[in-house]
Amino acid sequence: MELRPIGIIHSPYKNRGAAPYQGYKSEEISRIEVFKEFEEGLKDIEGFSHIIVIYWFHKSQGYHFLVKTPWDDSLHGLFTTRSPHRPCPLGLTVVELVARDKNILRVKGLDAIDGTPLLDIKPYIPSIDEKLPIKVGWLEGRLGKGRS
Amino acid sequence: MELRPIGIIHSPYKNRGAAPYQGYKSEEISRIEVFKEFEEGLKDIEGFSHIIVIYWFHKSQGYHFLVKTPWDDSLHGLFTTRSPHRPCPLGLTVVELVARDKNILRVKGLDAIDGTPLLDIKPYIPSIDEKLPIKVGWLEGRLGKGRS
Repeated sequence: MELRPIGIIHSPYKNRGAAPYQGYKSEEISRIEVFKEFEEGLKDIEGFSHIIVIYWFHKSQGYHFLVKTPWDDSLHGLFTTRSPHRPCPLGLTVVELVARDKNILRVKGLDAIDGTPLLDIKPYIPSIDEKLPIKVGWLEGRLGKGRS
Repeated sequence: MELRPIGIIHSPYKNRGAAPYQGYKSEEISRIEVFKEFEEGLKDIEGFSHIIVIYWFHKSQGYHFLVKTPWDDSLHGLFTTRSPHRPCPLGLTVVELVARDKNILRVKGLDAIDGTPLLDIKPYIPSIDEKLPIKVGWLEGRLGKGRS
């Protein structure tokens, strides 16, 4: 299965160490450049306040099945974490769409590093994407306590 | 960029016509088979009530930049829709994790068809994945009105 990027992410985070573990608390603006050839598919996207951005963790190399996260010192199953080191290195962030200028989207809350290949954009639709009630396993009570 | 599936989705929907447009209203159970070699990465996933499933739209062929959806008769920008026909045919659904038996996850709300290749599983974390306030563009007031 082969993928070809539809754009590139220009971000204030120049490397993994500079990026937040999750972007949702950040006020930084990233610029998503959708390649010109795909611009028509963005029609009316400015009507959406939030979008789902899917990208390629291009700096990811290899993975472990049990990983440590910033939230505690235990080892957790890879698929219960958002680690960028995964068999399919696909990143996913719901971001705020701040502005659009033609093929350029300015977004808030994206934690991808500069130069990250963009794979897809989907509308964020609360009635589809939000779920309740929620159990968050080992993360219960830990969010916001570690490096965020 | 190449991807190798980490599992396969066994679903009651044998083809695209049988699947709901979105799975979130369905009570049907799908069975996600994570290949044995990746099972260790599922450690403690049963602590999560909801997971994000990313998969390959393997029946998708080609795409259009302006598409019609079940919700109205207008043409909308592809990236403001959840159409399976996309440049990178990546599907994304937040599902309820009903049960786990070793490498098999039983989930509710998945709209993928039978035989869909599984690419990734991520924990669903409300504080990261839920956003407010929300504008949903052309979808405003339409959800739940068309075929769902």
